Amino acid sequence: MNLNRRRFLQSGTAASVLGSLSLGSVSAQTKAKRASEQAAKLAVAMDAPVLRTELFKQPVKIAAIELLKSGKHFLVRARSTDGAEGLAGAHDAVLETTYPILVKRIAPYFVGRDARELEKHLHGVYLKDSNYKWQGLPFWVCVAGVELAILDLLGKVAGQPLGELLGGVVRKEVAVYRASGNRGNAPEAEIEYLQKIVAETGAQAIKYRLGARMRYDDDSTKRDLALAPLVRKTFGEQMTIYADANGSYDVPQAIRIGRVLEAHKFRFLEEPVPFDYYDETKQVADSLKIPIALGEQESSLRSFRRIIETGTARIVQPDLLYFGGLTRSIKVARMAAAAGLECTPHMSGGGLGYLYIAHFASCVANCGPHQEYKGDGETLPVECATSSLKSVKGVMKIPRGPGLGVTIDPDVLKRAVVVTA
Amino acid sequence: MNLNRRRFLQSGTAASVLGSLSLGSVSAQTKAKRASEQAAKLAVAMDAPVLRTELFKQPVKIAAIELLKSGKHFLVRARSTDGAEGLAGAHDAVLETTYPILVKRIAPYFVGRDARELEKHLHGVYLKDSNYKWQGLPFWVCVAGVELAILDLLGKVAGQPLGELLGGVVRKEVAVYRASGNRGNAPEAEIEYLQKIVAETGAQAIKYRLGARMRYDDDSTKRDLALAPLVRKTFGEQMTIYADANGSYDVPQAIRIGRVLEAHKFRFLEEPVPFDYYDETKQVADSLKIPIALGEQESSLRSFRRIIETGTARIVQPDLLYFGGLTRSIKVARMAAAAGLECTPHMSGGGLGYLYIAHFASCVANCGPHQEYKGDGETLPVECATSSLKSVKGVMKIPRGPGLGVTIDPDVLKRAVVVTA
Repeated sequence: MNLNRRRFLQSGTAASVLGSLSLGSVSAQTKAKRASEQAAKLAVAMDAPVLRTELFKQPVKIAAIELLKSGKHFLVRARSTDGAEGLAGAHDAVLETTYPILVKRIAPYFVGRDARELEKHLHGVYLKDSNYKWQGLPFWVCVAGVELAILDLLGKVAGQPLGELLGGVVRKEVAVYRASGNRGNAPEAEIEYLQKIVAETGAQAIKYRLGARMRYDDDSTKRDLALAPLVRKTFGEQMTIYADANGSYDVPQAIRIGRVLEAHKFRFLEEPVPFDYYDETKQVADSLKIPIALGEQESSLRSFRRIIETGTARIVQPDLLYFGGLTRSIKVARMAAAAGLECTPHMSGGGLGYLYIAHFASCVANCGPHQEYKGDGETLPVECATSSLKSVKGVMKIPRGPGLGVTIDPDVLKRAVVVTA
Repeated sequence: MNLNRRRFLQSGTAASVLGSLSLGSVSAQTKAKRASEQAAKLAVAMDAPVLRTELFKQPVKIAAIELLKSGKHFLVRARSTDGAEGLAGAHDAVLETTYPILVKRIAPYFVGRDARELEKHLHGVYLKDSNYKWQGLPFWVCVAGVELAILDLLGKVAGQPLGELLGGVVRKEVAVYRASGNRGNAPEAEIEYLQKIVAETGAQAIKYRLGARMRYDDDSTKRDLALAPLVRKTFGEQMTIYADANGSYDVPQAIRIGRVLEAHKFRFLEEPVPFDYYDETKQVADSLKIPIALGEQESSLRSFRRIIETGTARIVQPDLLYFGGLTRSIKVARMAAAAGLECTPHMSGGGLGYLYIAHFASCVANCGPHQEYKGDGETLPVECATSSLKSVKGVMKIPRGPGLGVTIDPDVLKRAVVVTA
């Protein structure tokens, strides 16, 4: 998108906001002016480069992008014509059925191109062969795997960790939260489980689930009403508590439960109504004091811009894999920063999600106080010289080595085969 | 979604619309009341059943859903435990990389269920295993293949064409338009091409492309400005002319070109700006008299509801395959009808798209005056006793036999193998 185009689109939005307001009063005009200025700031943040290309003196020409499978794990390997190599864990469970998309529609686009122009290629692969029509999780998860492997390659070439590549390191360790994936268990059983995952990690923040996933019923409501005070009482005033409804509610139920969460000083309410019910989410946000968090299912930068512009959510949550990788997610964070909001990524299971979130947090000032940490039971085995990769007293050191800063278990690589679709 | 839930969401929207308006004047209140009533009507239209289950006395239990491949063609076969069979062409080019999604994530869900409850299953498979996160073309194209095979099965069991199953037949033939897929050729060459495809079909309506696909430049602008008057002059006042920008413009360029199209009495302008720039699309719509068409990339019913409610487009265009099949697309058409708008489906290449559009038009009163017809060069070979499946003087007869009303070439089936992913 050229600069003129960008300016036009900005002015378009501004005029649109203006048109939707009554012009009778000065305050409406002032509001419209502010909205227009904000829209322009967000558009600039969205389009600003992320990768620090000045770290590279020479082209880093991509010789090959391969998808590898080892047991249940999928990895993407990026090789340069100079013999450098990048390696990243992809989203295992998603790749199980999307591997032909990565192998046939996405990987070939990057071969022969200069890795330093990664951002241009991310837009290029989106336009190529009408891939933009495929926008959504299956497409972006595949792009994310490729992007992360290329970033690891670039980091190794530059001798820098990802945070330096992607804007500059602003923190060296990250405070984590643990999330419970349970629903339908008794409040007492859920408390026991939360105590267990807090004890394992020393986390100072927890998240648990509300509703019944995209619906609610009497049983889930009883559980929701019982758990909120019980969690606060059990973990005390110092614990940060988040709650995730996974789109379970309608507007009145979201407001009802949201008020209970407010009374117990929860820090955010995630996805109160189905994610694509934006007007309803906005109404919930306007009716509550507790911030609304949203974004796991978003696949469009423009959609995030709208969520931020309209105040539909105060914490935006791109999933680093579902949304196409670190570069695109950092653009969301920068838009959030321009509006004074936080961008706390969603973390999908598998792959090396906790590591990608740590690198994201390493260079994003407004990432929020805690990042999700799932423990390392299911993840790709790696070694790291600069971090235990464990949460100690609720804090994990961020790897400092080049690229992702970890070495993937050689046994895993020995068993890996190239996936040809 | 239960009835209470629906009511709550409706009232939520209504209150939200109310909240966004100044309440100082009676006319604002009246407007808000109308918006609220309209939102309620759309929600009812979205949730109303499509499949006429009263046509079936007995359960139609699904014994198997199989994906078949024959040469470049993909087909879905649905079998009932009673030995009935349905068969539909899927989207060949998409299935080339999404077949594991269909085979592993989607088909198994339907096996063992009663086909008469198809609508429930379409929502069920969306919720299952967090498939809702996968919402988008790769997911819905797979669901569409399965849905069409099940509809063919149901039609054969009931001895009724799809139109009778899906609300009742309102027309027996369909007027077609031909679309040119060219960009970048000289205006004179494009005119020649349009003359050729009009001559082949006798179509009384044509569509051609503007811009440069998700961008524009000086060359494309020159072509756009030259073609509009030339197409009108060549084909005369009686020809219906549509134009598709495929998201090429920004707001000022869309308005500039849109005014030229208006001067030459074009009937709609499709996707003036990138499809996920809704606010910008709305501004273009508000600035022009020519109706805006939109919807090829939509994957959410709620999103279509919003496009209709907000007047972002006057012609909505779900792609019958990208959007998950006939049932979901008919729900969009009913929402459009509730707002006095047209729903003219987008047609993706391959499969049996022209046939699915014909069946859609057979039972959707507000489908607009012309439906796309691509010719049968690339499609799955079929025979039909009740229609030549050709456009004669711009009109194609809609098959009247049970289900899809066609017989797929036995040679294609003979070569077909079951895809196991």
